[in-house]
Amino acid sequence: MTTTPAPIVPKPVPVSATEVAAVLDRLRERTPLVHCMTNIVVAGFTANVLLAVGASPAMVENVDESADFAALADALLINLGTLSQERVTAMRAAAAAASGAGTPWVLDPVAVGALAPRTRLAGDLLASRPSVVRGNPSEVLSLAGIAGAAARGVDSAADSAAALETAADLARRSGSVVAVSGAVDYITDGTEVLEVRTGSPLMTKVTGVGCALGALVGACAAVESSPLHAAAAATTVLTVAAEVAAERSEGPGSFAVALLDALARVDAKTLENHLGARA
Amino acid sequence: MTTTPAPIVPKPVPVSATEVAAVLDRLRERTPLVHCMTNIVVAGFTANVLLAVGASPAMVENVDESADFAALADALLINLGTLSQERVTAMRAAAAAASGAGTPWVLDPVAVGALAPRTRLAGDLLASRPSVVRGNPSEVLSLAGIAGAAARGVDSAADSAAALETAADLARRSGSVVAVSGAVDYITDGTEVLEVRTGSPLMTKVTGVGCALGALVGACAAVESSPLHAAAAATTVLTVAAEVAAERSEGPGSFAVALLDALARVDAKTLENHLGARA
Amino acid sequence: MTTTPAPIVPKPVPVSATEVAAVLDRLRERTPLVHCMTNIVVAGFTANVLLAVGASPAMVENVDESADFAALADALLINLGTLSQERVTAMRAAAAAASGAGTPWVLDPVAVGALAPRTRLAGDLLASRPSVVRGNPSEVLSLAGIAGAAARGVDSAADSAAALETAADLARRSGSVVAVSGAVDYITDGTEVLEVRTGSPLMTKVTGVGCALGALVGACAAVESSPLHAAAAATTVLTVAAEVAAERSEGPGSFAVALLDALARVDAKTLENHLGARA
Repeated sequence: MTTTPAPIVPKPVPVSATEVAAVLDRLRERTPLVHCMTNIVVAGFTANVLLAVGASPAMVENVDESADFAALADALLINLGTLSQERVTAMRAAAAAASGAGTPWVLDPVAVGALAPRTRLAGDLLASRPSVVRGNPSEVLSLAGIAGAAARGVDSAADSAAALETAADLARRSGSVVAVSGAVDYITDGTEVLEVRTGSPLMTKVTGVGCALGALVGACAAVESSPLHAAAAATTVLTVAAEVAAERSEGPGSFAVALLDALARVDAKTLENHLGARA
Repeated sequence: MTTTPAPIVPKPVPVSATEVAAVLDRLRERTPLVHCMTNIVVAGFTANVLLAVGASPAMVENVDESADFAALADALLINLGTLSQERVTAMRAAAAAASGAGTPWVLDPVAVGALAPRTRLAGDLLASRPSVVRGNPSEVLSLAGIAGAAARGVDSAADSAAALETAADLARRSGSVVAVSGAVDYITDGTEVLEVRTGSPLMTKVTGVGCALGALVGACAAVESSPLHAAAAATTVLTVAAEVAAERSEGPGSFAVALLDALARVDAKTLENHLGARA
Repeated sequence: MTTTPAPIVPKPVPVSATEVAAVLDRLRERTPLVHCMTNIVVAGFTANVLLAVGASPAMVENVDESADFAALADALLINLGTLSQERVTAMRAAAAAASGAGTPWVLDPVAVGALAPRTRLAGDLLASRPSVVRGNPSEVLSLAGIAGAAARGVDSAADSAAALETAADLARRSGSVVAVSGAVDYITDGTEVLEVRTGSPLMTKVTGVGCALGALVGACAAVESSPLHAAAAATTVLTVAAEVAAERSEGPGSFAVALLDALARVDAKTLENHLGARA
């Protein structure tokens, strides 16, 4: 009898509604303080997503405060959307402080690959070992060093399934959980893969839904010690709320509003109904 | 017959719907230009609140323009939400220019106490004597130098009533009106206290409602020479609109939308109905 | 028989619904990548407008990336709303890169005239020859060097018709198409003038509608080689969607939401119905 090597891409496993509900309950009970270093486009929406779901957002992005606050917060998000020289310095300090303090933190490498400076920055931040890297397929491929993966700006030109092997490899090499967004979301630590099949195409028609997911992953990582399960729980909560919202929307404007309403109401029963319909 | 010393905390007095309506009418007639130096999270929502109610927002936050614009505007808001080195320099210049020009201005000391740099900055700005300081109880306690008052980021851990004595003392020492937000809002110049009991818990589930209140206080201070009554009028208008909005909302997303709609429609009759119901 | 000199202000001509629909169809087919360098107040709303209509927004505003991205994008918007020292440097580099690469670009000279530094900046950027300058009457008059035209901040004190002669002259001198917003919008290259009479007063009660128009002009200029017709198409699409939205709104909050919904649905038939009603 011989051992067989682990497959390079483990078979994706669906998330459990019960586990997600347990994470969500803890989140609402503890209202984790999520330090968001994010971009000017989505900062307001991100804060509203966190408030709606029951977490507590705080945006602190200057060089004098970011490291202290990253150590004090329950989780940290670093989103590379709109960089400035000061913000970059503050992000590096915050990532180091979070790592040092054991604060769970999330890296969202927005538009990495399209532009060399942020590709280098993302690589450097990866060395501070984020708990979770969340991105679209192009960003994950670019972060893993696959040339030519660059999407046009923040769009994703690649399919999440096609990026899964690279994501698993990146997770093994970096020690970070990697969450790849797409029609199907995959979350992997390199050994296991969880898949999330809930969601709505309207999520791509509202700016900041992916960025807000990064913040929500942080909130869940503050109350769930497995970054793999935290990222899967956050993805499930957001995409189930998106399904609820899509049913009540007439377009991207009303969808964004309904998404916040749905995030405030999503509970174990909602999760079961929407995940069960896929089983 | 002997004089008795003034009580340290005067008895709170309800606001008058008629007085608030008069301030609101003047605001809509004069459409004051409110110079907002605020944070990336709430800038859009703040502008929309001012536009909805009938004022004219303008965000100017760079070092080359902030002082000139503060002198030219009808009111100035300085909100410490997301600081940067340039923004701090520009804020100091604007505060000094507003004081010099007699422009009414509002200080919103977001998250003061949680982080030392902004606590020092807020203390310095207080010396330029804002017309009104608006904050949650933790921020007001921290600004007054009460150690250990720091909330977790922008949350308020303290009750507004518990902060009232400190607020009144801070108002007397600083010469600024102090407005403390909470389930009940208190506005005091150290001699008088006005209380506002309207509002909705949904206000805490949408980012920027408190920050927008700071801007609205500025707009009212541009048309009402008593900062005490200006701050009370702004608080009343916003919290009454919040009650109207809460009745039509299914969650924080639709509440934020309905709040803007309600602000555009609130009038003397709405104010009387909502304040009367409390009397 | 003698030739007569061209009139200084040509007679405004209505836009054609068929032409606008053709531009909109191409936009949705090609989903142009629009590089937006805009302000913290409207960045999120601008991105949502572009996504709703079918374009692809990307905000890149730092000195290390703006020039490279301007050359890579399908169109560039430079909006002077909230300047910072780094943003100004990045804008100058991006404008030069766009001009060099032949990327169509739009200048939105927010609040020019009210403050000297941004008036100088706008004049400098004009030398890089934007495809289109979009502004309110005061901004256009100020950019053309008419003293005393400055509005209070971002408000427009002047009527669009009164600015038309100046706009046509500015277009001839600068080589840029000039689009003047107002109750009636005028778009001119100095030789022709197109007019757009659709719209809603609610557009002035939501922050960023004019700024988002600048981004939409960029998106249209990426798929329509005539900047004159691109700007007219963008203005028509936005103002027709505004008419649709106004019918379903109860105030500025619900109008902003309905505007995004309407932008996602506006088509040839909607355009014909709304433009035809004016003929």
